[in-house]
Amino acid sequence: MERRKFLKGAAMAGVGAAALSAPAIAQGGKTLTIVSTWPRDFPGLGVSAQRLAARIGELSQGHFKVEYFAAGERVGAFDVFDEVASGNSQAYIGADYYWVGKHPGLAYFTSVPFGMTTVEWNAWIKFSGGQELWDELSGGFGIKSLPCGATGTQAGGWFNKEIQTPEDLKGLKMRIPGLGGSVMSKLGASTVSLPGGQIYENLVSGAIEATEWVGPYNDYFMKFYEAAKYYYTGGMHEPGGGLAFGMNASWWGGLTDWEKAVIEAACMEEHAAQFEEACARNGEYMAKLVNEHGVQVRAFSDEVWDAFGEASAEVFQEVRDHSPLALKIDDAFQRSLREIGGTMAALEGTFVNQRNRVLGLI
Amino acid sequence: MERRKFLKGAAMAGVGAAALSAPAIAQGGKTLTIVSTWPRDFPGLGVSAQRLAARIGELSQGHFKVEYFAAGERVGAFDVFDEVASGNSQAYIGADYYWVGKHPGLAYFTSVPFGMTTVEWNAWIKFSGGQELWDELSGGFGIKSLPCGATGTQAGGWFNKEIQTPEDLKGLKMRIPGLGGSVMSKLGASTVSLPGGQIYENLVSGAIEATEWVGPYNDYFMKFYEAAKYYYTGGMHEPGGGLAFGMNASWWGGLTDWEKAVIEAACMEEHAAQFEEACARNGEYMAKLVNEHGVQVRAFSDEVWDAFGEASAEVFQEVRDHSPLALKIDDAFQRSLREIGGTMAALEGTFVNQRNRVLGLI
Repeated sequence: MERRKFLKGAAMAGVGAAALSAPAIAQGGKTLTIVSTWPRDFPGLGVSAQRLAARIGELSQGHFKVEYFAAGERVGAFDVFDEVASGNSQAYIGADYYWVGKHPGLAYFTSVPFGMTTVEWNAWIKFSGGQELWDELSGGFGIKSLPCGATGTQAGGWFNKEIQTPEDLKGLKMRIPGLGGSVMSKLGASTVSLPGGQIYENLVSGAIEATEWVGPYNDYFMKFYEAAKYYYTGGMHEPGGGLAFGMNASWWGGLTDWEKAVIEAACMEEHAAQFEEACARNGEYMAKLVNEHGVQVRAFSDEVWDAFGEASAEVFQEVRDHSPLALKIDDAFQRSLREIGGTMAALEGTFVNQRNRVLGLI
Repeated sequence: MERRKFLKGAAMAGVGAAALSAPAIAQGGKTLTIVSTWPRDFPGLGVSAQRLAARIGELSQGHFKVEYFAAGERVGAFDVFDEVASGNSQAYIGADYYWVGKHPGLAYFTSVPFGMTTVEWNAWIKFSGGQELWDELSGGFGIKSLPCGATGTQAGGWFNKEIQTPEDLKGLKMRIPGLGGSVMSKLGASTVSLPGGQIYENLVSGAIEATEWVGPYNDYFMKFYEAAKYYYTGGMHEPGGGLAFGMNASWWGGLTDWEKAVIEAACMEEHAAQFEEACARNGEYMAKLVNEHGVQVRAFSDEVWDAFGEASAEVFQEVRDHSPLALKIDDAFQRSLREIGGTMAALEGTFVNQRNRVLGLI
């Protein structure tokens, strides 16, 4: 697999690794300093970000002198947006919903409750006007973003007790960022946003009683099962979408068409690869969680889903009331969700439900 | 949208369009002649192939001198495999299941009945051993293939009468290639494989009574509704998967790591884009088919799906009996389908079915 080469290459993209082979077009090359929200070598997300950094160097034959800093190596995980907006670094890798405090519209460019799957979101971003709205929103902060990673529909999360009715969410201390966190708050939970590297210690100490993270492959390495045994299948909070490669907008604007093409192609390649890697590994790691660590897999009841739906509608109304741009983004998103998602249901949905029934897959 | 630039660029990738801007690394560039199974400017598939050709030129700064020949411009649609295996051209774009007559295992590298969705197939190809099996199979014919386009779950097809029970398939003359065609044959249909450019005339003349093609966006332009009013939602025959950028294996083997990286990145980018474009457009074009052309949308009944399932199992057994390599491919595919698809059902499937229920999307 060519992928193995990327992993090897990723190690080269560490701090100070500007020494990627460079001949022909290296003179006049450009520094590209990337700051990340993920810890170094973090399985799934961190490895993917490092692979992207290496690939930009490789595809450009070293024209881009790429330096990659994991969370905390140059700035803290949640400081990368300001670092890039200020021009101190050229790009960040992270989830734009970490910055809903700056503007709630940013959540739509990661993932929102009852929103689009990754495939639907990709279609919206690239072919139904999503990228233009992202540019308008992020451009206001001096940022130009491209999709650069996706996890697929995230698991409902880790809980230290069963969630059987909406009542069970009342008073629950849970790590869940973005608008999904707002939905849980509406239902009475006490929610916090923490970067990935700080969740485990808070769960083990009891400072939080529940957390969501990603899915079986990514979650396995977080060892949440040591403190919370109940693991819920697909949740409402992050059905799909993508991570951001957020660049300083002035820097992006000064690139040549070829330089832009290289960055676009590398981001698209990694956007697909991170998602596919999670899909390929989730089955194996779900089995390990259950068989090696006694994890109890559960699905939320229809009653809980109905409550999620009602709370989500309230959250979206608050977003719409925030500003004309937030209203415009929610309008466009909800319209595309119904058009794209409705047809996906008729085509892929019809097939998948019949296939799984006939083959006994579920 | 940057996509618009690709479309503009695609026009440049026509016959003899080796004049892409080239400076720095163009000396010693390589000719890359691509022969395609799609007619020139064919909506969806053909446009996508032309976009890929242009992007390889752009990403390599003209190092690859790309010539693109649509179906019939250099060789016929179904002759491209032999053209490339012989070394006359460097690469083809097409669906590998067109060549199941050479080896039935080739069908797994386009799409097979009751098989994987595009996301599942991508995960298998890139991270669960699929590419290695593809290399082993195609390598035996002197071909190295990469994924370079996908349509998503295809519609069940166009019929000049309703299909209510498996009995209605008996004697039906239908265009349906690959193993999906074998399944229809088991159920009594009389099936043929025809390239895209020849289907309409056969349907209108009555030489065939039914056909599948892709989905609402691609099918709209084929005008099948003039002869067949019943259009079926998601079918069993092509649930997902991908098209092939099939290169002469010796030529590929002689490329540098950078040259391979450029081709891989361009193929991955277009593999994603073609799929996402179809997902983005399908809703709009489904509505146009119904509202402008009186198309009647139907879903196959459980009884028909059960018959499809039984016939598929027979077809897979015949593939397995063909050769040890066919057995190895089917074993790997079926195992990955259940592992990847089972977990997709628990995560994305759980969410999508609940979302669609709560939002009233279906």
